[in-house]
Amino acid sequence: MGGLREELDGSADLAALGVGEAGERIRRGTLSPVALVEACLERIRALDGTLEAWVHVDEKGALAVARERARESARAAVRGPLHGIPFAVKDIFDVAGLPTTAGARAFAHRRPGEDAASVALLRAAGAIVLGKTHTTQFAYRDPAPTRNPWNRAHTPGGSSSGSAAAVAARMVPLALGSQTVGSVLRPAAYCGVVGFKPTHGLVSTTGVIPLAGSLDHVGVFTRGVADAGLVFSVLARQRVAVEPGNPPRLALAPEVLRRASREVAAHVQATADAFARAGATLTEVKLPRSFDGIHAAGQTVLESEAAAFHEPLFAKYADQYGPEIRKLVERGLTISAVTYLGANRARLAFREEVMEVLAAHDALLTPTAPTPAPEGLASTGDASLCAPWSFAGVPAISLPSGLTPSGLPLAIQLVQAAGASARLLSVAAWCERQVAFTRSPGL
Amino acid sequence: MGGLREELDGSADLAALGVGEAGERIRRGTLSPVALVEACLERIRALDGTLEAWVHVDEKGALAVARERARESARAAVRGPLHGIPFAVKDIFDVAGLPTTAGARAFAHRRPGEDAASVALLRAAGAIVLGKTHTTQFAYRDPAPTRNPWNRAHTPGGSSSGSAAAVAARMVPLALGSQTVGSVLRPAAYCGVVGFKPTHGLVSTTGVIPLAGSLDHVGVFTRGVADAGLVFSVLARQRVAVEPGNPPRLALAPEVLRRASREVAAHVQATADAFARAGATLTEVKLPRSFDGIHAAGQTVLESEAAAFHEPLFAKYADQYGPEIRKLVERGLTISAVTYLGANRARLAFREEVMEVLAAHDALLTPTAPTPAPEGLASTGDASLCAPWSFAGVPAISLPSGLTPSGLPLAIQLVQAAGASARLLSVAAWCERQVAFTRSPGL
Repeated sequence: MGGLREELDGSADLAALGVGEAGERIRRGTLSPVALVEACLERIRALDGTLEAWVHVDEKGALAVARERARESARAAVRGPLHGIPFAVKDIFDVAGLPTTAGARAFAHRRPGEDAASVALLRAAGAIVLGKTHTTQFAYRDPAPTRNPWNRAHTPGGSSSGSAAAVAARMVPLALGSQTVGSVLRPAAYCGVVGFKPTHGLVSTTGVIPLAGSLDHVGVFTRGVADAGLVFSVLARQRVAVEPGNPPRLALAPEVLRRASREVAAHVQATADAFARAGATLTEVKLPRSFDGIHAAGQTVLESEAAAFHEPLFAKYADQYGPEIRKLVERGLTISAVTYLGANRARLAFREEVMEVLAAHDALLTPTAPTPAPEGLASTGDASLCAPWSFAGVPAISLPSGLTPSGLPLAIQLVQAAGASARLLSVAAWCERQVAFTRSPGL
Repeated sequence: MGGLREELDGSADLAALGVGEAGERIRRGTLSPVALVEACLERIRALDGTLEAWVHVDEKGALAVARERARESARAAVRGPLHGIPFAVKDIFDVAGLPTTAGARAFAHRRPGEDAASVALLRAAGAIVLGKTHTTQFAYRDPAPTRNPWNRAHTPGGSSSGSAAAVAARMVPLALGSQTVGSVLRPAAYCGVVGFKPTHGLVSTTGVIPLAGSLDHVGVFTRGVADAGLVFSVLARQRVAVEPGNPPRLALAPEVLRRASREVAAHVQATADAFARAGATLTEVKLPRSFDGIHAAGQTVLESEAAAFHEPLFAKYADQYGPEIRKLVERGLTISAVTYLGANRARLAFREEVMEVLAAHDALLTPTAPTPAPEGLASTGDASLCAPWSFAGVPAISLPSGLTPSGLPLAIQLVQAAGASARLLSVAAWCERQVAFTRSPGL
């Protein structure tokens, strides 16, 4: 037990452990889930006053469960691959007994009796809900109070702002988020962590407040690809082997690269060159013509479906809606069924056409966002480089891949065809090994 | 070969053979596909001048394929379970090289280069396209010229009017149709044949002109349940064993029975009583509350999706649209995306809720239509008793179960939960055996 006492002394180090490493120590008996949860709580106490990643930290509840998991692991009764791992939940996901506010506070405050399906799966695998993290209002663009752990004058991105910041700040090794346009990968990129969303529909959104049902994906934040794979295997109820494997065949789309700032485009090109030197094949591809219309089509679907969900609430509380979600709903209310159905058809046509391009390579490599995290909290940044892959419902992952001279994270996005989430994770594991990004915000 | 010559002499008898029996004789070498096609062509020549079931009979093409199938079966090279069986195709399905007019003639006349997916599957199993059958305009309610083989003063129902009439009149043992509201089961009921639509989405609608994509089902007309099962196994690419089995547990919904005429309700009740005497369990069930709204919700989805498909064509040719399809499109053009999405949500909620009721029994037993085939050709009759099961996308089958004193067919409908198409066929086989309906229009 000397090892255990030793680790209990260094709570900052414990909070920095990844999902896989912490789980391994818990299974070996060298780490107590209680110590891990306490280390996370200590980080939150120390840092959250200025970062504001958390809406609600369930100290008592999490410690009670941690003690139960500790007793279980002491008698080798391990519930699953996430036994004893604390996680954060974006505050549009239901957690039984905790309020769901959706960043809308008073007028959207519910205390659900049941966990969201994804929360239930993580808990069944032994994971511990640490609390709820800030979201932009109804997961759209009205910002959360959360700040970027790398530079508090900058946005952490959104809408899963608190989840990204909490994982980046080593407050928790794992967080759930959701992505309808760019709400997992963009904040992951801005905050220097891994953000992953599998194929649309693979992980149930039951118990998650919808933004647009056809487009909403459950996603995860971790600090490494293997951890994302571990969590994915639980959420998708699949055995997934995430192995770096052979150098991948990567596709680059110049028309996407041109949409990024010079700094980001140069970084992604340099990263691609480094991958090529390490043996990867890089091929320039042209995206199908339907790519040109995908932003407009996806936005129409988003506006329509958001309006359909919000209509009754909006009729009562319009004055309490933030300006961005209000505009979204108001635009959605004016769209005709024929326009919606045409947009959805265009979206699905892009999905079909782009699948061929994607499936012909191991991944498409793009920037995750056009710039690093913008200064200020008024905007959550530009989701346009994530949007096509959300609208197409294909799996995508963001990896931290460098820092700007001023110390903000840079990131790459890897995209694969629908149904190839596990394949994408293995490619990402190879890329992660080349990039060897080990920096943390140093909080 | 004496047997073969004997059968060649009696072409009316050959045309009356079912799919399974004809296929068996072809495999045994006692029936030539050429003789079978010729017998069907002779029936068509004799009867279609007044019945008008066919838009186009491909005599030359069908005979050429029949000769090829005959040569193949002579050397025991059988393509599949439908080797040598002629079939009719509703004229909204593409058949390579034949025009698709959708009952809209000049302004919707195409000559496709490829078969619809379902046509291709039947052909790959050895079946022979005999020609295209009349549909109401764009598979909605503007009537086809087809008459009811049991009484030419009565409608055969629609929209798959020609397919139902052709199978009833022994012009062909098998026809493809489509059902969005009640377009397979209702004409099957009016024409005294079996009409079956499996779970929505199980059979591809690729190559079929849509009426409403979320609701369109491919369905089949045969003269017996085993034949429908045989064709279903080809279309769904499943091995299906249709066996009458044990007496089923049937559900009766009084609120549905009340929507039928006294004559039809009494017939269905008497049929149910006969089933009970033969050992079936009959249970009265209450449908979920969402049943009340399913007609309005389904109609909104239908109008919206029909308008989305027709908008470009309608903009050019509005004056050539029949009054019913015109009204449908015009109403659809005024529906908002939010209304559409709300209706679709209501539809899917009914689907979820009714599944529980359905899955708790072997089938729900209802009338297929509120009355026998109405007099006159101006209307294709009332689809309201088929509509809920189309809107829910669950499998349903209509069986001929009697005749009115004036000699029009009566029918029962059996409904099961989504995914249980094969189970439904076995229940239908048991019911068919009890009913023992052997009458034909005597043409």
